[in-house]
Amino acid sequence: MQILTGIRETQDWAKAQRASGLKIGLVPTMGFLHEGHLTLVRNAREACDRVMVSIFVNPTQFGPGEDYDDYPRDLERDCALLEKEGADVVFAPSVKEMYPDGYNTYVEAFGEITSKLCARSRPHHFRGVTTVVSKLFNICVPDMGFFGWKDAQQLLILKKMVRDLNFPLEIRGVDIVREADGLALSSRNVYLSPENRAAALVLSRSLQTVRERIAAGERNAAVLKDWLHGAIEQEPAAEIDYVEIVETSELRDIEQLSGQVLIAVAVKFDKTRLIDNIMVEV
Amino acid sequence: MQILTGIRETQDWAKAQRASGLKIGLVPTMGFLHEGHLTLVRNAREACDRVMVSIFVNPTQFGPGEDYDDYPRDLERDCALLEKEGADVVFAPSVKEMYPDGYNTYVEAFGEITSKLCARSRPHHFRGVTTVVSKLFNICVPDMGFFGWKDAQQLLILKKMVRDLNFPLEIRGVDIVREADGLALSSRNVYLSPENRAAALVLSRSLQTVRERIAAGERNAAVLKDWLHGAIEQEPAAEIDYVEIVETSELRDIEQLSGQVLIAVAVKFDKTRLIDNIMVEV
Repeated sequence: MQILTGIRETQDWAKAQRASGLKIGLVPTMGFLHEGHLTLVRNAREACDRVMVSIFVNPTQFGPGEDYDDYPRDLERDCALLEKEGADVVFAPSVKEMYPDGYNTYVEAFGEITSKLCARSRPHHFRGVTTVVSKLFNICVPDMGFFGWKDAQQLLILKKMVRDLNFPLEIRGVDIVREADGLALSSRNVYLSPENRAAALVLSRSLQTVRERIAAGERNAAVLKDWLHGAIEQEPAAEIDYVEIVETSELRDIEQLSGQVLIAVAVKFDKTRLIDNIMVEV
Repeated sequence: MQILTGIRETQDWAKAQRASGLKIGLVPTMGFLHEGHLTLVRNAREACDRVMVSIFVNPTQFGPGEDYDDYPRDLERDCALLEKEGADVVFAPSVKEMYPDGYNTYVEAFGEITSKLCARSRPHHFRGVTTVVSKLFNICVPDMGFFGWKDAQQLLILKKMVRDLNFPLEIRGVDIVREADGLALSSRNVYLSPENRAAALVLSRSLQTVRERIAAGERNAAVLKDWLHGAIEQEPAAEIDYVEIVETSELRDIEQLSGQVLIAVAVKFDKTRLIDNIMVEV
């Protein structure tokens, strides 16, 4: 497994693979890898001839006062895990390599999809995401990009970006990976105190109950949202950022559930903001 | 020569060429081709194995009240000219193909480079240019993109965009092509009345005199700008939009000429706005 830090050498490597007719799968990450990331790598391994994993804590997607400086990092451990999974290349650039002096170009998707849910409390977050992913697509020239459904809004925005800007590649969404007790895997889970780690189970548990209520026939979005809100508030440590039920093309609010529906929550436990969601086909 | 109108088929064609190891040159145009465009095609023909020419009058780079509806179009004549030049593919999509319903993603370069010169009177122009060129790069997947120095600001912004977003390709600038009497070629020249056609010569003539004054030792930007302003105002039909002397990385104002310097003018003759420039290495 090669570890590359330069944009030019990474681009040259990727171009050489494609020139030999090999299919490249890219797994963009911010490192501090867990089973969720490794599942993405396994999906890429399955679907492509070459697997590139980028590890870059992207400053442009963090707002002032967010956890950019404290975001957990462990490149050595990440590389050991990726080697075991059979990744071919790790692209781990410096901030200076990605955003040199004078850097000033951004890719931005507009509309409801980038102004709701996580965008409310993180106003420039998705502009940072679409910009860095555009750069990674241009650097790694993949045939497929692999992203987790854990960040559902991010995945839907990236699908829209790829469609709108005609990137010559396919985005593959991969299901959320959970701990045995239901907690969605996240690099930020390490921030949780033991008490909050237990309290955070309210998210997966209440989402699971919503899924059951929908299976039992409930179609009214307001009823389900109210119930979900109430269920999360039962947990005193939980401070709700949002509880949303939306369709999946533009994240528009819906009154009655039909088609593909995203039920997403963001909740703070002390300073740690967690997100979770379920997708239902009605 | 093939004429393609679909994004997918164009992307497939381009990918097939690259998979065979062939180098693609792209010449993005808005059609109504003249010798300036054909010179770009010849440069692409020289440097690449396959030449793609896009013909698309891009609505997102026109402001309200600008000449989008009236912009001259003649696809049949354009294709005949390109066939003669040995282009391999013309990509001529509809507006709906490029901007389907719900389209809402933009690529934008910020800073002085996109807020001066032509950006002053055309505030969203360059956002439209960087967005459509990003799309064309993703659709035609070229190794090289060819652009004329006539649109110097556009060319410098696109070079910056390619650098910032790491597009895996090279931008080649090609010298301005002029009529025998000095008028820079432009599709908009057809709008000029015979009187204004004659009056417009003031641009190339006065820029040429500025070049001579620099060769003779003048280094003071304010002196040269004042002189250029005065020279153009001698022509009663000329209504100056701007006269600028700037460095070429960010289009910053300069006091003393040194390094690569752009001397650029935009002037209206009735409703027709013409631009012209010279680049000097001091």
